[in-house]
Amino acid sequence: MSLLERFYQKDELALSRLISYVENQAPDYYKILSSIYSRTGKAYRIGITGPPGAGKSTIVDKLSNYLAQNGDQVGIIAVDPSSPFTGGALLGDRIRMQDLTTRKGIFIRSMATRGSLGGLAFTTKEVSLLLDAFGKNYILIETVGVGQVELDIADTCDTTLVVLVPESGDSIQGMKAGLMEIADILVVNKADREGAKRIVSELDMILDVRRKKGEWCYPIVSTEAINNKGIDELLKRILEHRKYITEKGLLEKHRKEQIKSELKKIVEVRIKELIEKYLGDTNIEKIAEKVYSGQEDPYSAGERILEKLNLKLE
Amino acid sequence: MSLLERFYQKDELALSRLISYVENQAPDYYKILSSIYSRTGKAYRIGITGPPGAGKSTIVDKLSNYLAQNGDQVGIIAVDPSSPFTGGALLGDRIRMQDLTTRKGIFIRSMATRGSLGGLAFTTKEVSLLLDAFGKNYILIETVGVGQVELDIADTCDTTLVVLVPESGDSIQGMKAGLMEIADILVVNKADREGAKRIVSELDMILDVRRKKGEWCYPIVSTEAINNKGIDELLKRILEHRKYITEKGLLEKHRKEQIKSELKKIVEVRIKELIEKYLGDTNIEKIAEKVYSGQEDPYSAGERILEKLNLKLE
Repeated sequence: MSLLERFYQKDELALSRLISYVENQAPDYYKILSSIYSRTGKAYRIGITGPPGAGKSTIVDKLSNYLAQNGDQVGIIAVDPSSPFTGGALLGDRIRMQDLTTRKGIFIRSMATRGSLGGLAFTTKEVSLLLDAFGKNYILIETVGVGQVELDIADTCDTTLVVLVPESGDSIQGMKAGLMEIADILVVNKADREGAKRIVSELDMILDVRRKKGEWCYPIVSTEAINNKGIDELLKRILEHRKYITEKGLLEKHRKEQIKSELKKIVEVRIKELIEKYLGDTNIEKIAEKVYSGQEDPYSAGERILEKLNLKLE
Repeated sequence: MSLLERFYQKDELALSRLISYVENQAPDYYKILSSIYSRTGKAYRIGITGPPGAGKSTIVDKLSNYLAQNGDQVGIIAVDPSSPFTGGALLGDRIRMQDLTTRKGIFIRSMATRGSLGGLAFTTKEVSLLLDAFGKNYILIETVGVGQVELDIADTCDTTLVVLVPESGDSIQGMKAGLMEIADILVVNKADREGAKRIVSELDMILDVRRKKGEWCYPIVSTEAINNKGIDELLKRILEHRKYITEKGLLEKHRKEQIKSELKKIVEVRIKELIEKYLGDTNIEKIAEKVYSGQEDPYSAGERILEKLNLKLE
């Protein structure tokens, strides 16, 4: 029986293998994605982002328990934009989260890919398609929220949670502002700690600007995820957001936008592969030597390569 | 007189304009880069990265003063991977740094571009080429160190400083490990604070592993940048590293590698532009509708587009 057949029969090992296959962009990985694509579109994607140490993994942990108890099939993608050599706190979280895998209906995958063609967000999207086709109806995507990654993840997800803690004060001011823009729901975790009320009212003020513009209420949910407090409220808010964007036609609009960026990415990545093959080894060495010795500038060299590629665009 | 002529005559306004031109990837921006390329290759690039609040801007500020006093021409690129709407601490730093612009020989440029073709690191590289051709012999590139951005910046630079503070303890464990891999020199700033000694000895242990592998000594420099303490020592170490990589041939090797990734990027970005043009508006709308309604999967659609592009690769 082929891997794909086993995948269709809900074999988790086959799912894992196909994820690795796609993650490593193994030969013809896009043919696999092409085959399974007609089975996708049912899953709802929730992004969970925020600064390190905010308790994102714990929230994902508790949320997925709630969902699984409701009979939902949950897939979790934990995206670590830092290096695969990273140890410490992150690894701790990951190990703890492995407990989930033994629970019914929950599948977890940790990703720490750097430098993959098309970027981490591309791979995350493809992996979520596999989970979707596998039958997961909720996909939770967790990532540290800094820089480009969290923005890409927000693009990939239908509802984005930004998790902060009372300590998320001054030093991450910049981070916070960047994160605020992508939040559909704000979570203040570790809400029993000092300063929780202050940060909630601070966030409330910032959100009021956005609330006035749109119709969505941008709720702030206080949680103590470790004690399972506030998670039911959080799930309620997520479902409200889902209902809101579905009824307003925003989900459909967003999904179409996602398809467009997906299409562009697919073509780009495939062309990158072809360029890599073309430039591989001797060719690029030769050109680089010429540039280094000052015989040619890289921009003229680039134009020459383009001419050779002979792109026909009607 | 053309913009380029004024640029050659060291007109800073012309430099600013050309940077904006390149940053926005205005039509034929690569022709400008092609023209100025033969004047590049003289500047030495120093990357300064680390978590938010570590005092990177202050270190850049003081370092550039030292360099300018030695008669060096300094260019500073402050890269903010978070959103252009970001306020707070980062903006404060930027405003403070604007003081530098009035000092002789120092040019500062702040960048907060998101979503540019080829990514922030690509644009940073191009902007640094302009500064190089303008006659800056030291270029300091400052960025918040998280995720892909700081890795790309390290690739762009000759010497990379990672700035930490005594508080850079547990919550950024993951961040720290990712950062350690790219550091040529470690800086513990705010070294008068509690825990400074502990973090230095901690880092010392981690670095010993790397020290044994290579010949470079991976120094740790303690600074109180705000009081100008330790900056002379830091500069000394930077110059030592420069001497080391130059004599060992590592600089040449690194520069050639940089040229190779540059070449690939150039071709990719140009092809992206062409794809954008080809897919633009009606075309991509039509395909996206087909995908959304389930008539086609995006991977098959991608293949179709590729066939139309008719890439010829010998």
